[in-house]
Amino acid sequence: MRAPASIGQRLEDVDTPALIVELDAFEKNLATLGETLKGRNVRARPHAKTHKCPEIAKRQIAAGAVGVCCQKVSEAEAMVEGGIGDVLVSNEVVGAQKLARLAELSRRARIGVCVDNPENVRQIAAAGAKLDVYVELELGMRRCGVEPGQAAVELAKVVMNSRPLRFAGLQAYHGRAQHVRSVAERRAIIEKAAADVRRTRELLRENAIDCPIVTGAGSGTYMLEVESGAWSEIQPGSYVFMDADYARNEWAAPLPRFEHALFVLSTVMSRPASDRAIVDAGLKASSVDSGMPTVWAKPGLIYVRASDEHGVLEGKELPRLGEKLLLVPGHCDPTVNLYDWYICVRAGVVEAVWPITARGALR
Amino acid sequence: MRAPASIGQRLEDVDTPALIVELDAFEKNLATLGETLKGRNVRARPHAKTHKCPEIAKRQIAAGAVGVCCQKVSEAEAMVEGGIGDVLVSNEVVGAQKLARLAELSRRARIGVCVDNPENVRQIAAAGAKLDVYVELELGMRRCGVEPGQAAVELAKVVMNSRPLRFAGLQAYHGRAQHVRSVAERRAIIEKAAADVRRTRELLRENAIDCPIVTGAGSGTYMLEVESGAWSEIQPGSYVFMDADYARNEWAAPLPRFEHALFVLSTVMSRPASDRAIVDAGLKASSVDSGMPTVWAKPGLIYVRASDEHGVLEGKELPRLGEKLLLVPGHCDPTVNLYDWYICVRAGVVEAVWPITARGALR
Repeated sequence: MRAPASIGQRLEDVDTPALIVELDAFEKNLATLGETLKGRNVRARPHAKTHKCPEIAKRQIAAGAVGVCCQKVSEAEAMVEGGIGDVLVSNEVVGAQKLARLAELSRRARIGVCVDNPENVRQIAAAGAKLDVYVELELGMRRCGVEPGQAAVELAKVVMNSRPLRFAGLQAYHGRAQHVRSVAERRAIIEKAAADVRRTRELLRENAIDCPIVTGAGSGTYMLEVESGAWSEIQPGSYVFMDADYARNEWAAPLPRFEHALFVLSTVMSRPASDRAIVDAGLKASSVDSGMPTVWAKPGLIYVRASDEHGVLEGKELPRLGEKLLLVPGHCDPTVNLYDWYICVRAGVVEAVWPITARGALR
Repeated sequence: MRAPASIGQRLEDVDTPALIVELDAFEKNLATLGETLKGRNVRARPHAKTHKCPEIAKRQIAAGAVGVCCQKVSEAEAMVEGGIGDVLVSNEVVGAQKLARLAELSRRARIGVCVDNPENVRQIAAAGAKLDVYVELELGMRRCGVEPGQAAVELAKVVMNSRPLRFAGLQAYHGRAQHVRSVAERRAIIEKAAADVRRTRELLRENAIDCPIVTGAGSGTYMLEVESGAWSEIQPGSYVFMDADYARNEWAAPLPRFEHALFVLSTVMSRPASDRAIVDAGLKASSVDSGMPTVWAKPGLIYVRASDEHGVLEGKELPRLGEKLLLVPGHCDPTVNLYDWYICVRAGVVEAVWPITARGALR
């Protein structure tokens, strides 16, 4: 698989659509996360589901992270293959085939996994590997997880009684809070979640169960979890890139506003009429599940709709045929999953190309 | 890249999420297209943007198609590489890099391309290849294309005066009509489009310009184009698979209702509460741009929402932890683009695995 750009190439010469990382903004985002955690007793375990790329994971670890999270065993395999030694699958893993792969992986790296069901705990134990097992709490996301409090304690006991597993703590993530627009509302949601976490930790203590780690939080809330004191590890993912949907959030202290570092480079492929320009990046080039992309540094232009291979731009001073435009994806994670390579650019020149080795890693 | 299933494996043993082709339904869809065109003076050039797979293109050609369409040069490259000798890029191609690749490709296969701009025609001619060039008409889709009538004739003249290009005819596709729910409304839209096509053909004739082919139409309308008599070639793509969004259309004569042949196999990975089951196929496994997937053969179950790696099911008789379910994707084309392999199944057993070689072919 050949890289779609070469080092030293100018950005305007890169063929399109292409996934671009602006290195200055990307590095600033890595630094910003570190600065906000300075003096806090909380470690960072960034989410690799966003970037799917060991090159980025290595840079996150160099910036202070203890390791990364993944959502899928195949993502964890790509990370370990790429040299990452500490991976938490922040998700339930069900089925003998996947668990055999997870057990195999745990011979090469420190591997954690989440549980919300005793039958699943027994299945994991049967795979025979020393895994770090986290009990996932349902904090209002209405997805996976057990209820905080007694139900979590009961499941922790099942883990502790299942050799060779190790009870590593609690997975406590509130995904729905991340895109609640106002900081005050996000704070209220995380305060309630923190109360649930504290109650569960106290109940674990009363049952003489050590809870080494409480892990969770995302880019939209993580400083609220940090300030609550209830979490010991955070899992932000999108912070490295930001996207158009996150940009619609309100950002205020203690939450830093990260910079857009991920773009889709597109070409104007048609100027059929005076009211619109058509670009070559549609919904196979920029996932639209969280809204359309925005046009970077062209405030008068609006990307109004996407079809599979086309995007329609309207607005003032429409670009000419053949002009190249940077788009900010609506949602970074599924957009990254459409590409095999990051083209990393600084000051308008390609500095590196990084393979997205966990692209399409679904299993 | 290893195939995610092996021939002879039982469907229930295939790890998930996985993209499944039900071969009986798929073959029936191929046959149905052929039957509906019997005795009509219209040839089929199915759209490979849907399936991105030369193995499927070959079967379409074996069933009577003259070749395939693509939307991107890189898709056309994958088709020619896979042995397909006649490919129309039913789209504008802008930029010297892409046009050089298209010219290169035309030395190995019959290649067509669409235009809607005289500057672009000159750029294509400068690439120096004998390409079939189609003038794209804007029929109400409000995307690319020139206005029917005089504007189209003027652009055809530019093509005819641009050596070594060959004016091959008109690209006349109305994408927005495909998912208009009622057949009567779709018919009204296509009748208006047919009048625009006829008017343009007559004007070409008055200008002594031969128009060998009028090509266009999709799975939601193609028999309306055929019955109008204004088209000589049709480009249906989704008919091989069908999807949940197409299933919401009204289907009545002359349009056949194709069968669901494409599925995402998923596993129930969490049963956190009595009101929901969580499957391991979210929006990275089934594109949600045209709505959520539906649950196959389980009328009481509703896939209510997707996050990146999770799907939430609600309804009666919720499946048990570890149970596998087939989902019908909301939109087949971008869902296919998330996978590297089709796992082809007949009577519950894997019969073949086909690589999706144009997956991610954006350029």
